[in-house]
Parts: sequence; C-alpha cells; structure tokens
Amino acid sequence: MTVIPVKQTASLTAEELRKMQAYWQAANYLSVGQIYLLDNPLLREPLKLEHVKPRLLGHWGTTPGLNLIYVHFNRLIKRHDLNVIYVAGPGHGGPGLVANTYLEGTYSEFYPNISQDLEGMKLLFKQFSFPGGIPSHVAPETPGSIHEGGELGYALLHAYGAAFDNPDLLVCCVVGDGEAETGALATSWHSNKFLNPARDGAVLPILHLNGYKIANPTILARLDQEELEALFVGYGYKPYFVEGDDPETVHQLLAGTLDTIVAEIKTIQQDARINGFSKRPRHPMLILRTPKGWTGPKIVDGIPVENTFRSHQVPLAELASQPEHLKLLEDWLRSYQPEKLFDQTGKLIEELAELAPQGDRRMGANPHANGGLLLKDLKLPNFRDYAVEVPNPGTTTAESTRIMGQFLRDVMKLNLDRQNFRVMSPDENNSNRWNAILEVIDRVSTAEILPTDDHLSPDGRVIEVLSEQMCQGWLEGYLLTGRHGFFSCYEAFIHIIDSMFNQHAKWLKVTRHIPWRRSIASLNYLLTSHVWRQDHNGFSHQDPGFIDHVVNKKADVIRVYLPPDANTLLSVTDHCLRSRHYVNLIIAGKQPELQWLDMESAIKHCTAGIGIWEWASNDRGSEPDVVMGCAGDVPTLETLAAVDLLRQHFPDLKVRVVNVVDLMKLQPEEEHPHGLSHKEFDTIFTTDKPIVFAYHGYPWLIHRLTYRRTNHKNLHVRGYKEEGTTTTPFDMVVLNDLDRFHLVLDVIDRVPKLGYTAAYTQQFIRDKLIEHRQYITQYGEDMPEIRNWKWQH
Amino acid sequence: MTVIPVKQTASLTAEELRKMQAYWQAANYLSVGQIYLLDNPLLREPLKLEHVKPRLLGHWGTTPGLNLIYVHFNRLIKRHDLNVIYVAGPGHGGPGLVANTYLEGTYSEFYPNISQDLEGMKLLFKQFSFPGGIPSHVAPETPGSIHEGGELGYALLHAYGAAFDNPDLLVCCVVGDGEAETGALATSWHSNKFLNPARDGAVLPILHLNGYKIANPTILARLDQEELEALFVGYGYKPYFVEGDDPETVHQLLAGTLDTIVAEIKTIQQDARINGFSKRPRHPMLILRTPKGWTGPKIVDGIPVENTFRSHQVPLAELASQPEHLKLLEDWLRSYQPEKLFDQTGKLIEELAELAPQGDRRMGANPHANGGLLLKDLKLPNFRDYAVEVPNPGTTTAESTRIMGQFLRDVMKLNLDRQNFRVMSPDENNSNRWNAILEVIDRVSTAEILPTDDHLSPDGRVIEVLSEQMCQGWLEGYLLTGRHGFFSCYEAFIHIIDSMFNQHAKWLKVTRHIPWRRSIASLNYLLTSHVWRQDHNGFSHQDPGFIDHVVNKKADVIRVYLPPDANTLLSVTDHCLRSRHYVNLIIAGKQPELQWLDMESAIKHCTAGIGIWEWASNDRGSEPDVVMGCAGDVPTLETLAAVDLLRQHFPDLKVRVVNVVDLMKLQPEEEHPHGLSHKEFDTIFTTDKPIVFAYHGYPWLIHRLTYRRTNHKNLHVRGYKEEGTTTTPFDMVVLNDLDRFHLVLDVIDRVPKLGYTAAYTQQFIRDKLIEHRQYITQYGEDMPEIRNWKWQH
Repeated sequence: MTVIPVKQTASLTAEELRKMQAYWQAANYLSVGQIYLLDNPLLREPLKLEHVKPRLLGHWGTTPGLNLIYVHFNRLIKRHDLNVIYVAGPGHGGPGLVANTYLEGTYSEFYPNISQDLEGMKLLFKQFSFPGGIPSHVAPETPGSIHEGGELGYALLHAYGAAFDNPDLLVCCVVGDGEAETGALATSWHSNKFLNPARDGAVLPILHLNGYKIANPTILARLDQEELEALFVGYGYKPYFVEGDDPETVHQLLAGTLDTIVAEIKTIQQDARINGFSKRPRHPMLILRTPKGWTGPKIVDGIPVENTFRSHQVPLAELASQPEHLKLLEDWLRSYQPEKLFDQTGKLIEELAELAPQGDRRMGANPHANGGLLLKDLKLPNFRDYAVEVPNPGTTTAESTRIMGQFLRDVMKLNLDRQNFRVMSPDENNSNRWNAILEVIDRVSTAEILPTDDHLSPDGRVIEVLSEQMCQGWLEGYLLTGRHGFFSCYEAFIHIIDSMFNQHAKWLKVTRHIPWRRSIASLNYLLTSHVWRQDHNGFSHQDPGFIDHVVNKKADVIRVYLPPDANTLLSVTDHCLRSRHYVNLIIAGKQPELQWLDMESAIKHCTAGIGIWEWASNDRGSEPDVVMGCAGDVPTLETLAAVDLLRQHFPDLKVRVVNVVDLMKLQPEEEHPHGLSHKEFDTIFTTDKPIVFAYHGYPWLIHRLTYRRTNHKNLHVRGYKEEGTTTTPFDMVVLNDLDRFHLVLDVIDRVPKLGYTAAYTQQFIRDKLIEHRQYITQYGEDMPEIRNWKWQH
Repeated sequence: MTVIPVKQTASLTAEELRKMQAYWQAANYLSVGQIYLLDNPLLREPLKLEHVKPRLLGHWGTTPGLNLIYVHFNRLIKRHDLNVIYVAGPGHGGPGLVANTYLEGTYSEFYPNISQDLEGMKLLFKQFSFPGGIPSHVAPETPGSIHEGGELGYALLHAYGAAFDNPDLLVCCVVGDGEAETGALATSWHSNKFLNPARDGAVLPILHLNGYKIANPTILARLDQEELEALFVGYGYKPYFVEGDDPETVHQLLAGTLDTIVAEIKTIQQDARINGFSKRPRHPMLILRTPKGWTGPKIVDGIPVENTFRSHQVPLAELASQPEHLKLLEDWLRSYQPEKLFDQTGKLIEELAELAPQGDRRMGANPHANGGLLLKDLKLPNFRDYAVEVPNPGTTTAESTRIMGQFLRDVMKLNLDRQNFRVMSPDENNSNRWNAILEVIDRVSTAEILPTDDHLSPDGRVIEVLSEQMCQGWLEGYLLTGRHGFFSCYEAFIHIIDSMFNQHAKWLKVTRHIPWRRSIASLNYLLTSHVWRQDHNGFSHQDPGFIDHVVNKKADVIRVYLPPDANTLLSVTDHCLRSRHYVNLIIAGKQPELQWLDMESAIKHCTAGIGIWEWASNDRGSEPDVVMGCAGDVPTLETLAAVDLLRQHFPDLKVRVVNVVDLMKLQPEEEHPHGLSHKEFDTIFTTDKPIVFAYHGYPWLIHRLTYRRTNHKNLHVRGYKEEGTTTTPFDMVVLNDLDRFHLVLDVIDRVPKLGYTAAYTQQFIRDKLIEHRQYITQYGEDMPEIRNWKWQH
C-alpha cells in the first residue's frame, strides 16, 4: 500500500504570488475570450463589434473560481508530486477548464489545430459554444474531465467513485453552491462513510460559495458561520475556510490552507496505511467564498453585476445595440494585461508556463480521467460452471439472481488483487439474492461495526446505501476511471436515477466519437424485485418503465436483456461483463421460478438473442396457427402455462413459442445493430399468423419496436397496464390480463378454426378466473394448481 | 393571523403514563395482529397455525416507533388543542397507522365493515396485505395519510408542502433513518429556509433513529453525538434528543420534550405573528432513538432480532415449519395483554379510548389529509384578456411562456387573500419567462436579504430552489392538502423527478376509486427551455422523454399538451388550472416565436385538441396529396416553413396541415378518454395518403399512439433522435432531420406525382443544407432567411 510522504506547509513568496496571479489572469483572459471573441484574440488592435461573436453563450460567473482552484492545484501537484484529477461540479464553467488545459498544453496535444499560438488561440475562442465547435459546459471533449456538469448534482459522487480503490489519487472536486441544493449532492457528502483511507484515494471537496445561482442567492451562502461550519462537521468533515475578494490575500490564504489540507490528507492516509484502519477520520474539506463573476464588470448600466446573480451567464450581452458595452468588454479584457501574459507568437510566457505540472501530472492529461487507458479486463470464471441442472424444461426451480450472485462472487474473488470490481445496491444486495458475494468480500462501512452487523467492514467492496443516486454516481465515477461494476436495484425505483442514466448514456454516445477517448467498461444494471413479483409491496413498487426510458437513447450505447431463467441470466451476465461502453440493462427474477434451458441451450439462445423454443412448440415442419411470443421470466412462465392449456384443449392447434432475451432483436436492423432483418423476423413470427405476445413491461413498447414488421398487424401484446396492489403473484398477472388464462382467451379470439370446443374452453377459463379470485380472497395465496404448475410435455 | 396560546410543559402522571403505555400496547398488538392473524383476533383461544396467514407480509421494525409517536401526539393534540396531520416517512410501517386510526375510530367511520368489535378486528387483521384487502404500506386507503411512503425520501417535502400557507397546521413528520440517506430527504431539511412562521404552519421533523435498514445499519444512527447534533444544527434546527429502550423512561422523556417543543413552536409563531418576521428561527426537531422492532422477539433461533436489521420485516416467518416460532408469536402477542386492552365485544376499553382526540382533531380524520375537502376553486381572470394580437398567422412573434406568466401573475393576484396558489421552479422562474408573477409577489426566502437581491422576501409565494425534487415534493404536499400550483422546469431535467411523478400518478389513480377521498387540484407542469431551444446549453440539456414517461401511466390521470403559440398556451393553462385530479403536462416555448392563432381560433383549436389548419392547407373540398402533421412549437414552425417551400415548388400539390395540441387525441378512444374515434382520425389523416408528422419528442411515441389507426402504414414521423450539441436553433432541427428542408424531402419521397421538378427541388434543398452548414460554422448563427422566415400566404 502506498504511503505518500508529508511536506511542510508554506505560504507563497512574492515571486510565486506574482506568477500565480498572472497565470490566473491568463486563464481568466482566455475564458472571457472564449465567451466573446471571434477574432483579434490578443487585442492587438482596438476591439470592434466584428471581433465579437453574434450570439454570446456561456457562463462567466463560476469561471474565475474554477480557474483560481486550477492554478492552485497546479502548484500543489508540483510541490507535493500529487496525482490529481479535477471534477468541476459547476460544469457550465466550461471556458475555465478549457482555458487551463490549453495553458498547460494538453488541449493542443489532443487537438493539434488548437495550437499554442495566436492562430490556435483564435480557433480556441471561436470554437467555444459555436456550431461545429465545442459545447459550452465541461464536456466529454474537455481534456481531464470525467464529469459533464450540465446537469448539476453529481460531482461529488463521481469524485468518490474515482477515488475508491485508487490509493494514489487525489480528486479535487469543486462543488457549486447552486448544485449543493440538489438532493443528490446533499446526500453525497456522506460518501466519506464509504471511503477507507488505507485503500482508497482521497477526495478534497471544495464548496465554492460564490453566493448565487441564475437569479437567486444560494441556500448555503446565506447560512451564518455557525450553521455552515456545523453542517460540514455534521457531514463528517473538518471544514477549512478561505474567504476574500482581494486576489493577493486569497492566493496566500488558499495556498497555505491547501498545503495544510494536503498534509492532513497524507497524515490520515499514512496512519491508516501503516497502522491499519481504526476509525473514520474527519476528512478535510474547503469552503471557498469568493465573488461570483470575480474580476468581471462590477457595474453595468448602473446595476451591480460582480458578486451578484447578474454575473451568472454573460455579463455584457447587448454589444450590438450598446456601444458602451463594447468598451466595457474591452476594458475588462485588457484588465488582465494579455500583452504581459502571452509572447509575440501568442504563447503563454515561459515563466508562467513553468507553473504547470509536466506530462501526466497535468490534470488535463491524467489517465484516470480517460479511464479506458487504465482499464484491464476482468478475470472471469467460466460461467458454465455455475449452471443450474435442467434435466427437463420447466420442472425444476431456482432463484435465478441467486445463481448470478454465485458467479459474481467468483468474479469478485478472482479480481480481489486487482481491486477493480465493485457491486452497488440501495440496501438490496441480499434482497436481490447476491448473498454469495459476501462470502468473499464484506459490505463496506467506515462506521463503528457492531457484533450484530452482517458482513460489514471498512475493507468491503460491496457498497450499500439507501440512495439509488449515490449507487449510480459512484459507479459512474468508478467506471469512468477505468474499473468495472454492477448495480442491482428494485425495478420500480431505478427511475430515481433516470436523469443520471441519461447523462451517462449521452457521455458514452459522445465519447465514441472522440478519438483520444478510450472505451470504458459498460454500466451494468440488474433490475430485479420486478413489477410482477412486487405483489407483496404493492402498487408503489410496480413500474417496468425504465426499459422504455433506456431505449429512447442512442441505439449504439444501450442493450436490454430479459433472460427467463438462471442459465440464460448467467450467459447474459458474462457477456455484459466483457462488453465495453454500453449501458446493459438486465431484468431477471429473484424468486424461485421454473428453469427452462440447460446451459448449452441457454448459450445458444442468448447468442441468438431470440429464438423458437422447439421443445415447447408443436408446429414442427409447418406454419403454426399461432405464435406465442414472450419476453421476461414471468411472461415466459405464463406463456408456457397457456401453451399447456392450449395443448390440452386444442391438441390439433399448431403453436409456436418464441422467446426473446435480447429485446433489441425486435427492432429492425437499420434501427439497432442487434435488430433482426425483416426476413429473419418474418421467418420467426410468420407474415400472417396471429401473434400473442406476453411482455414484461408496458405493452406499447413492443409495438413501438415492431411497427415496421410485416406481421405487426397481427401482433397482440399483453403487459403491465398499471394495475396492481398488494396481492398474490398470480393475481398480479391476472389484474393485467397477462396470465395463462387470458392468453388462452386471446388465442381463441384470434384463431377462428378452433371450432365448437372454443366456447367450452372460454367457459372453463371464466370459471377458473372466478375460482382464482375466490381462492385468494379466502386463503391469501394462489391456488395449488397455479403454484405447483410444471411443464409436462 | 392566528396566534396559538402557549401552555406550560408537564411530564406525565403515573396514571397518564399507565394509560399511554396501555394504548401503545394496544396499537402494537393490532399491528402484529395485522401482519400475522387470520382469525382468533383477541387470542381467546390458544394460537394455532390455522389462525395465521399463509403468506406473512409486512414490516414490523419501524412500527412500534410510529405507534409511540402517534400515541404521544394524541396526548399533545388534546393538551394543546392542536391541528395535526401525521406524515409517516417509513410508510412501510402501514400496520401502525392503520392500528391507530382504528383505535381512534376514524377507520371504522371510513370503512364501516371494519367495526370496533371482535368481528371488525378480525377483518382488520385479515385484510392487511391480503388479496382484496389493503396494501402493506401506508397508502391512499389509510385515513389521515397524504403520503404513501412506498418509495422513500419524500416525507419531509410533503410535510413542508402541507404546512405552507396553513398557519394553524402542525405537521408531525416521521423521517426514517433509512430514507434519510436518500438525496431527496438529505436536501429536504433545508425546507426550513422557505417556511415563514408568520404565515405558514409548522413542521416537526422526528428523525427516528432505529438504527437499521433491511440488512445494514443506517448512516445517521452510527454518527457520534457531536456529528449528529452538528448536522442538524447545520441544517438550521434545534435538535432535541429522546433515547431509550425502557418504555416508561421513554414515555416520560418524550412527553416532556414534546411539550417543550410545542411551546417553542408557539413562541416562534407568536413572535413572528405579533412582531413580524425578523430572522429565520432555529425550528425544533426531534431525534428519537429507540430499538428497531421494539417489544418484538428479542432472540429467534439463537440470533438477536430486536434492535437489529433482522426485525425489519417479519421477525418470525417459519411458523409452518417451526412449531416453536408459533409459540414465540403467541408469547409476543400475549405480552401486550390484549385481554386488558379490549372489552368483551372487542372494543378498546373506555379509559384508553378517551386518550384519542375527538372529531376532526383525530389525525385520521383531519381534513387537511383529504385535501379535496378543503379545496376552493381558484379565482381566475379571463385568459382571453391576455391574448396576443395575431392579425395574420405566422407574421408576428411573442415569447409564449412570458404571456403565460402575465396570466399567472393575475391568478396569483386574485388569490393572494386565499393564500392557496404557489408556483415552483428550480431557479428558473425568470429563465422560463414567468417574470411577471414577481410584479405581484416575491420569491420566498427566510435568509438574510441583500439589496442586490431581486424580488426576494419571507412573504413570497414563488418558490425557487435548485432541486427539482424539492419543487415536486413541496407541490405535491401543497396540492394534497387542498391548494393549487404550477411547476415550471427545463424539459430535460424534469426526469430528475420521474419516480416522484410515478408515485403521485399512482396516488391519483388509486384515490379515484376510494369513495371518501375528494378530488384535488391537478399537478401542472410547464416544461420549457425544451429540447429544440437548448442549442446553447448543449446535449446534456436535450431530452424530450418525460412525455414518454408520463403516457405510460393510467390514461385517466394524465394529460399532455403541446400548444404551438401563446394564445393556445393561454387556453390550455386556463383549462389545466380548472381541472382536477390529473397530471397536466404542458410543453411550450419561451423564445420569441411566430404566433399562429388569434384567441378565438386558439380556443376552438384547444377545445378540439387537434385540427386541420385550413388557412395553411390548400386541399379545400378535396382529399389532400399529403398530410403534414405537427405537434409542438418548433415542429409546427418547421412544418409551416416546409409547406411554404412546397407551395413555391409544387403549387399544384394539395397539402393538409394538421396541428395537435392535445397529444392524447392521437390514441384510440378506447385507450384514452380524449382519444379520437377511428372515424374522426380517418377524416383528419385520411385512410391512404402519406402523412409526414413533425413531432416535438422521440418519434416512436407517435407510432406507439397511432399503430391501431387505419392510415398508420403511411405515417412517417420526424422527431428528436438524440442528436445535439451546442449549436444554432435551426441546426438542432437539421441534426435530427426535423427541419423544413428534410420535411420537404420526406414529402417528395412519398408523393410520386410531383414529376420532373422534384429532382430540381431535391438539389435545391441539398444546396440549402450545405449553405446552412457553411453559414453557421462561419457566423455562428442561422442564415437570415431562416431567422426571418414568416408565413406569407
């Protein structure tokens, strides 16, 4: 385990101070330049309207603070030889991060046309928030970033995710006082309860109190000192305060404080690494209070701008209509004295350029921020070794996700030495049946552990916290820095991170097209405790709509799997752990359920993603009378039970059973890379026979995926139609017409040739449904013939 | 303004203590009975297996604590004549709330078959978590509840939402230490920065530290005392602590502490109401630390259960297989001495029944928890008075949501005296152009106000905080207690509350079928800063998928509107404010945009929800060659611009323009009450002509809504296909093929009769698209012919 040596605290010499101030001025100059200038980048001629962009887009307010911190971290990295990445929570301060990575040289290395000279600077300015250029926020295009910051609230989670299992890493995480109001951020401070300084890196949260959001003061900036300090003591930190609006004073205070903090972090780490973890330390954090829009225009049109919400975006926006604004802009730009910062060629002068660290120590070049560079494949056991014996389809039961847990246990075990695999869940690891993992690794907690606690220790790598947002954010941070993981969650409550998923999927989509970005491990979800088996928890726990949410994202980054049993789940899990740069969504059952496929059949089925289950069909060698499609474990069960009834009642009826594991197979191949060709689809589903399709989620999704298919007009889909309560498992499907009985009725409605026995069967089924209702309301559980049904063909 | 008189603090006499303990025992007994018993409700014969439910479902762990608090609040309400509702954050403690409302008599008033006698008790027990009975959580069926609690994290937001503008109300809000880990709850504590004791009621948060979740200790329960206290001081509270596992001690401590707290709340309110608001007070809150599963089995099978995570759900679950568990259950039940609590008929004995408050003071009967009872219609100005002049379609511009803001300003103004209307936004009120509202009411903040702040005061009723979760939760609480409101939000980030929306929609669905529940005001969303005009903020700000999320919920509670201009937006807004018990989703533009309909046309169009725009069509009296459908402001603009091009290039082509305001019109009438009949749909969209449909969101949704329509095979939809970055507004539509040029190409592809000029037009368009690309990358804004286009027919 690495032990970082401690250096003494020091404050700045006059020379250091002068240079750092100049470097900061350079970063601020470049930031303002990006927001405003199309041309005349170093103001070597008087500023004219034609030099200014016609549309002014960007956020100035947070930028000088982000720049200040960057400059100080450059010093800190060099002084203490630190390995640092910079997470900019107020990610709309994009110009600041771009400016700093340009100054340190990484920007031009990644984008050679943006060279460190006058021509490059002109392009740097023009491209910002400009069509064909770069986005206005810190974005995947920004060197050194693992965090977009367009949607606020996830900075600290990404920072902790990056620090887990990265003992040498220090994550500088700037938290805006605006984003600090979000729920995700408010609970993120508690991440320190899951960070073990003996094993993990450090996070230095810097709460940047610049006081304002778009139009309002922030909550935290208006707390009195007692409450502010108490809040962060309460969160488990040792808060340091740096406040001021005089640059020199702030530089001195900040440099000294950061030296102290680094020494303290090193002391904490040394102690834990030498003596072992004993007690959660109070990690240092910094509260930095500087004016919003610092160094920008103080007054515009007689109204205060600096240090008010009015400096949030573009402080001078009426340049075309108000000539005095152009003058103010020129004064503002010249106040940084660019002529003293950049040489004749337009390059940062040498004495300032020296302030930046070298090579990979530059925050824009740190490989942790381009995690694919560091990614190592997981060592995977052979998933076939975990196979459930399935002598005959549909006769034995298993808890599919429990089997998956056994496989994941050995994935964890094989990679313990690499420390690059974590599983997350909102207090549901065992509820979701991943208990086996705890045989090889504990849950992590740095709190006091009591004897009654179960598999809990500071050395654990199973992370459980009652916040889907924390699980998601940590995992994203972990994956983005080149590691692997799996997130298990109750299906209904994964919607809590819908928006976080969006941002991650967008990140994946964009980074696919950035040449210097390397692929990272996929974000893998297991959704269980799913809609059909939340009969006990009731309506609030029933929602299968995350699939719908996922499939709206770009086809080349999303995958959806609905393995119907344990062996298919194993095969899919192995596949997902090997995949890169996707979001893989797996939905599978955790309750004892009938098993359908032996391992070889499962592999074959999962490789195809969709297939005719010949053993359940009786249309061999001919066209079927009806196709029974199914996707999802419970719909598969009900479909096969319906087929059983059909066989009994209509022995001559030719039924084809089609099971879908990979949902994207249903879409046309031009819409999704996994999609079946129309010919393949027609071969499976016929071009003219009725299809009764039992689906795990909202039925409309199947129509949306298949409306271009030849036989779509004959497709009838059953799924969740938002009916549910606390009832029995079988009643859940009955309430939504997805049960075996309704499926048989659906077939009868669609196959005209069934003749006079159809009416008898319809009456039989109506009687069964009444019997079901009476039985459950009397006994509170499903009829034995339902509970004990097996496939007997 | 009401001033509540203060009473002196007192602790319990021995008699009071004995009775309260007995009442608590009764509540606990009834809770355990609900989880376990099918029969033999008062154990008048020895407990046998057949008396026990076959499936044991429920959560015991949190329940004794919820019961304890209920009993103490009964005393408090009587002693101080308080008006209290009880929000149970750990809502899975359903049996506790049901037990208490049964004991106080409200349950039997709402459900007369659950009578206060032996037969009623038997039914009470059986129905819990039983098919045909009641859900396992606190649910809409539970008297006195405004909060489901199935999904954790929203209790405190609902509590504050209920307290706003309800000066006489005290909301007792129990926060579980599990749910306290969620993001939503972690930021909810800051709600006190928005509560003005001069005008609003009080919230007493009770953090119930029972120490454990399903399988883990909680974060907050393992903080040391210093951090725990600091955290809540930091959140702005004055924390009181009550801890213990000896009932007598805890009763005394709790009674005394609650008396002190009530006195303090009254002092705070009196001061603010007499002297005016001066400074945010430190509101009291209570931290109650009692054992999880208190009074339940201490040890089961040699393993500790009480005060560990193992008491979370059903502590004795193997009754059928382990006879000694049955004995343990009987001992546990008998430990409450039910024979001393209930009389011969099965009714709570009189001396205990007297402990509950009377009438509406009972927490189960408080009308605030059935808000429809208190709901008063808003006084609405005539929305026609805010009409934008539209002399000709498509020639003048307006910012539609700014006009809406003027209407809402006067809604606010007319209802100021009723104090029953609030608007919420995540720091976006002005960004979303509702500035006018601030002319009549400020934003609310109880922080220090600085001279540079804008329209900010403790008396405001515009709530802005950078948390979509807080806005949503407060608004839900406000509506559920019988008031009105509107939530404006950036379209992309509304996904942050996807799951909260789910829960509210489910609440609305269920309460529609509970006879004693009264309809509440609809939850109204304005989504603006939408996908097409987030060209400046970039990809992270572009997501129109909330519509897809909403339409998955039950058709009878959701409505989606896409008004294309200001007058249609006014008409829709008025309609939504009058509606009841829906979620109304409105998506509209905030940028200057062309206006299409004068007010009378707008009203007619919105009343129909969909219609042929005759003035834009040239198919009068005949079948068109092509139908151009559109929904949403930007798609409408592009469609009309495309029609303009078509008229120029193909003057003989008969084009029909159909605009959709009410999206649900597209669905068949059997799927949604607003749906068009197939005949109506065919009349508008024809049965065989090509339809080119420009849609605001993901295009697949239109297919999902229309796949049953006759002419679906000819429907071609353009929409957002997840392409975007920081660019120009027009380039956003070009990137997604939704622009006028691509729409014309789509028509050319589908109408064969266009002849030789089609090739010329295709080339013209390809040239235009190249010209566009060149122009924006050179100038950074759209070509003047795009920016300045008007409708000139």
